[in-house]
Amino acid sequence: MKSTVEAISKDLLAGNRRALARAISVVEDGGTEASQLVRSVFSHSGKAHIIGVTGSPGVGKSTLVDALITECRKEDLKVAVLAVDPSSPFTGGAILGDRIRMQGHTLDKNVFIRSMANRGHQGGVSLATYDAVRMLEASGFQVIIIETVGVGQSELAIAQTADTTILVLMPGSGDDIQAIKSGIMEIGDIFVVNKGDLPGANKSASEITASLELAHFKDDWRPPVIVSIAETGQGIDELWQSAKKHKQFLEESGLLKERRGNKIESELSEIVADLARRNLKEAMRNSTDIRKVLQDIVDRQIDPHTAADDLIAKLFKDPA
Amino acid sequence: MKSTVEAISKDLLAGNRRALARAISVVEDGGTEASQLVRSVFSHSGKAHIIGVTGSPGVGKSTLVDALITECRKEDLKVAVLAVDPSSPFTGGAILGDRIRMQGHTLDKNVFIRSMANRGHQGGVSLATYDAVRMLEASGFQVIIIETVGVGQSELAIAQTADTTILVLMPGSGDDIQAIKSGIMEIGDIFVVNKGDLPGANKSASEITASLELAHFKDDWRPPVIVSIAETGQGIDELWQSAKKHKQFLEESGLLKERRGNKIESELSEIVADLARRNLKEAMRNSTDIRKVLQDIVDRQIDPHTAADDLIAKLFKDPA
Repeated sequence: MKSTVEAISKDLLAGNRRALARAISVVEDGGTEASQLVRSVFSHSGKAHIIGVTGSPGVGKSTLVDALITECRKEDLKVAVLAVDPSSPFTGGAILGDRIRMQGHTLDKNVFIRSMANRGHQGGVSLATYDAVRMLEASGFQVIIIETVGVGQSELAIAQTADTTILVLMPGSGDDIQAIKSGIMEIGDIFVVNKGDLPGANKSASEITASLELAHFKDDWRPPVIVSIAETGQGIDELWQSAKKHKQFLEESGLLKERRGNKIESELSEIVADLARRNLKEAMRNSTDIRKVLQDIVDRQIDPHTAADDLIAKLFKDPA
Repeated sequence: MKSTVEAISKDLLAGNRRALARAISVVEDGGTEASQLVRSVFSHSGKAHIIGVTGSPGVGKSTLVDALITECRKEDLKVAVLAVDPSSPFTGGAILGDRIRMQGHTLDKNVFIRSMANRGHQGGVSLATYDAVRMLEASGFQVIIIETVGVGQSELAIAQTADTTILVLMPGSGDDIQAIKSGIMEIGDIFVVNKGDLPGANKSASEITASLELAHFKDDWRPPVIVSIAETGQGIDELWQSAKKHKQFLEESGLLKERRGNKIESELSEIVADLARRNLKEAMRNSTDIRKVLQDIVDRQIDPHTAADDLIAKLFKDPA
């Protein structure tokens, strides 16, 4: 095992695409091999600009990402796309279908596109995404776009692993109003009203701008609202310039370090929660005491919340 | 607080609908009040038949659930529906819209319909669903239908909190083939090919039946495959009879207790994982040691996996 990991990480650092594909599969699977791989390349990570692209299905995210790839390539930047679908298995087909649209870039060795699915283990796909980004960075990619299929809870969690989060909407879908109401606005660093040739595009953009003016921001960044037509490339240059400006803002204000610190915090909590879950499952299998507690719950002698409190007292050290 | 919980649980056990609605909101929010409420009614729970209804959007789940309510009411059973949407906030509109179709039952005091959304806290909606079911049972509901909006990871987790899981498909969607390929078949106790008047319905049903024949089953239940037209009620009587037969099978074989034991196990792991996450966040705020570790990760001095291993050694007791 160890030697495999060593071989993969050596080839990965040399920029070998096959090793990269393999490395991402390893981190998707998780476990010891994944941890070893992260350990061996971690010092080479942290240098890319990570851009999250999120929005409801049908707003044209994939076409927009495709156009962003073209912008990156104009500047000779190595760019990778991770298309992450936390809701397997039925929607898996859709996101793979969308990938076909990006085939204009498939022969370009400086472009790497990969779908990531949930392999079934809770919190798995977020954790795997963090590690997949590290593999891409170690392999020399300078811009990493994380695209998610929707705007559910898990998708938003994934989008927020990025440095710059782009929220894509379209006119007339009502998503703009929903976004304003639901407080989802807070997660966007840049707003795009795509399909700008549809009626109401400018109205949507002004409504979003107006609601952003009312919002309270923790820092000095004012999210721009861009009207685009990804199909023709209109507005994409402006979008890319905004993304770069946002990265520069994060660096100069010291927020990049702060944000990445916060993300590390979330990631660590997830890893620890995951291990707690696994520890408990292990303990449930081996401890007659704990099996007795389970039976008591089934027999309605004790409720699960009280039982969980007792278990935690047994499993965790006192915070000293 | 305590007195509020006491008042709610007293009214809830007396069958008061307003108290029930309030109780479900309390468990949705989680926290101490929710735990107290569960504690106070837990001994009155565990008696209902819990039926999960899942399948891709558009297959007609809500119409089918509506028809199932009618079947339950023919037998004078008190029936509740929890429509659970783990992917807030944009899709929230859809599931609420679907509820309007069930308005034929809104004046019936023995029918209770409620949407539950993800209130943002990780693993929250599954945990809240377990507790909402308990509130409904304590309030005297005999059949509880849990309907989910899709077949993503979180929806499947929720569907599996049921005793009997109904997987709804429709002809020509390709979902049947996808279901067979993806191994999702394993979660269904009953299969329904709805919209049975569309071309290919019988073909879909035979393909599912054929693939079920090849499958390995852990127990003696052979999932029936039913063709239905929920709009007209066709096949719904057969579906309801199958659901009852499945419940009887679970009881007679002793599997009901076993399954519920397994669910308690999953629920406990989730509660413990959730508390581990919260404990760590707390520790991160208060411990300079842990803040130092975070900084070291940001500075690439140590990787998150190694750091998590160290933290776990600090936080957890040795399994003794």
